[in-house]
Amino acid sequence: MALQDRAIRTRRVILEAAASVFEEHGYEATKITDIVDRAKVTKGALYHHFDSKEALALAVLEAQLEEVPPLPAQASRLQEAIDFGMVFAHRLTYDPIVRASVRLTLEDTGQALKRSGPYDGWADLSARSLQQAKTGGELLPHVDPDETAMVIVAAYAGINLVARFTGSREEHDKRAALLYRHLVPSIAVPSVLAALDMAPGRGRRVIAEAERAQSTRRAQDGPLVAQGPQRLVAGRLPVARVGPAGR
Amino acid sequence: MALQDRAIRTRRVILEAAASVFEEHGYEATKITDIVDRAKVTKGALYHHFDSKEALALAVLEAQLEEVPPLPAQASRLQEAIDFGMVFAHRLTYDPIVRASVRLTLEDTGQALKRSGPYDGWADLSARSLQQAKTGGELLPHVDPDETAMVIVAAYAGINLVARFTGSREEHDKRAALLYRHLVPSIAVPSVLAALDMAPGRGRRVIAEAERAQSTRRAQDGPLVAQGPQRLVAGRLPVARVGPAGR
Repeated sequence: MALQDRAIRTRRVILEAAASVFEEHGYEATKITDIVDRAKVTKGALYHHFDSKEALALAVLEAQLEEVPPLPAQASRLQEAIDFGMVFAHRLTYDPIVRASVRLTLEDTGQALKRSGPYDGWADLSARSLQQAKTGGELLPHVDPDETAMVIVAAYAGINLVARFTGSREEHDKRAALLYRHLVPSIAVPSVLAALDMAPGRGRRVIAEAERAQSTRRAQDGPLVAQGPQRLVAGRLPVARVGPAGR
Repeated sequence: MALQDRAIRTRRVILEAAASVFEEHGYEATKITDIVDRAKVTKGALYHHFDSKEALALAVLEAQLEEVPPLPAQASRLQEAIDFGMVFAHRLTYDPIVRASVRLTLEDTGQALKRSGPYDGWADLSARSLQQAKTGGELLPHVDPDETAMVIVAAYAGINLVARFTGSREEHDKRAALLYRHLVPSIAVPSVLAALDMAPGRGRRVIAEAERAQSTRRAQDGPLVAQGPQRLVAGRLPVARVGPAGR
């Protein structure tokens, strides 16, 4: 393994260890030594990649957005916006990065972390895809993409919150589906609405579709030359790294 | 002032002091002595009314639900359910009890506080009023009141969360209105939908209406004999105690 690949892998191991410790103990109670122990690396290795606990938390929060797999294009932009949320709900059931970032985002850590970052990021992404949907004639004339994006992001954060408090993460996929089914009829034109998939399990189905598309591309492109680490550097993980097939 | 009245007033002063300290510092960082100092009472007086910091926080959380003023009856049960949320959004701008209970509810205090209480309370209240709306033919046939109540309560918690993080409480009334305008079209029959008031400022307008109704009742009922404290014992505050007229 090349030196660069090893460094990337070590960074990843540390990031995942940090995520699992943050998820268990929260930001305030987490100590760097807990992460060092969990990652089974030296303190020096950790500080080579991350300056501080804050840097680790911010990296986890960033990874939450970066690691969304390249989702397959759909017939409507609105379906793609819904898929983004449904995939997140699905990832919450197994991905430690997503789970940790939800806790970090929801936690009241005073000024220690700029937690509005993920909100702003999600709101921007949502507003952009809703704007595309509007331009494509998929949304009712009165819809303001920025306002709707705010409502969706805030409401989505609310179901994450309820999932944390009631501890039933399994219900999360069903709750996300219910949320979209309550919000989308007020924004979509009827012909688009009728064709949308907002049923529970949508996240799992989209990831499976993305994985099939990726296998096809790989088979066509020939051998993979260090594709995983290179894409990781570019801030995007191959789908297969995010969710094992069939989950 | 009778001894009982004085005790009720002292309890109230302590509760409001606790609310303002919890809102500023959060549950974990709050010390009983901070509350004693803020309330300008003795430690003995505080412990006469509340056993512990936890008891104080739970009393603040309870007061959040109890102190909803007796809102005026509306033409539709759905409007009443919306009014409940819009009044809460309005109270958030001035009522320390509501502000504190939002922070306590959203905060990640581990197992220290059973924070699902307010969620369950709101969800029960919402489900009941939606069930009445459904029985009255105000909701579309597919609506499941429990599911819709979960969505509304979770989404509402989400806008509270965003209000805390972005620090713009002034926008909260507008966000609450936007939330209802996105959710309600998917559950209401068109004739009911067309007559609903979901515009910003609805909370302020309903409280003003409640206050006018209360003045009329008082004028008809004759002199008030210790009405305030007695109603407080009964777990309901007169509207005038919750929000000053015209706010």
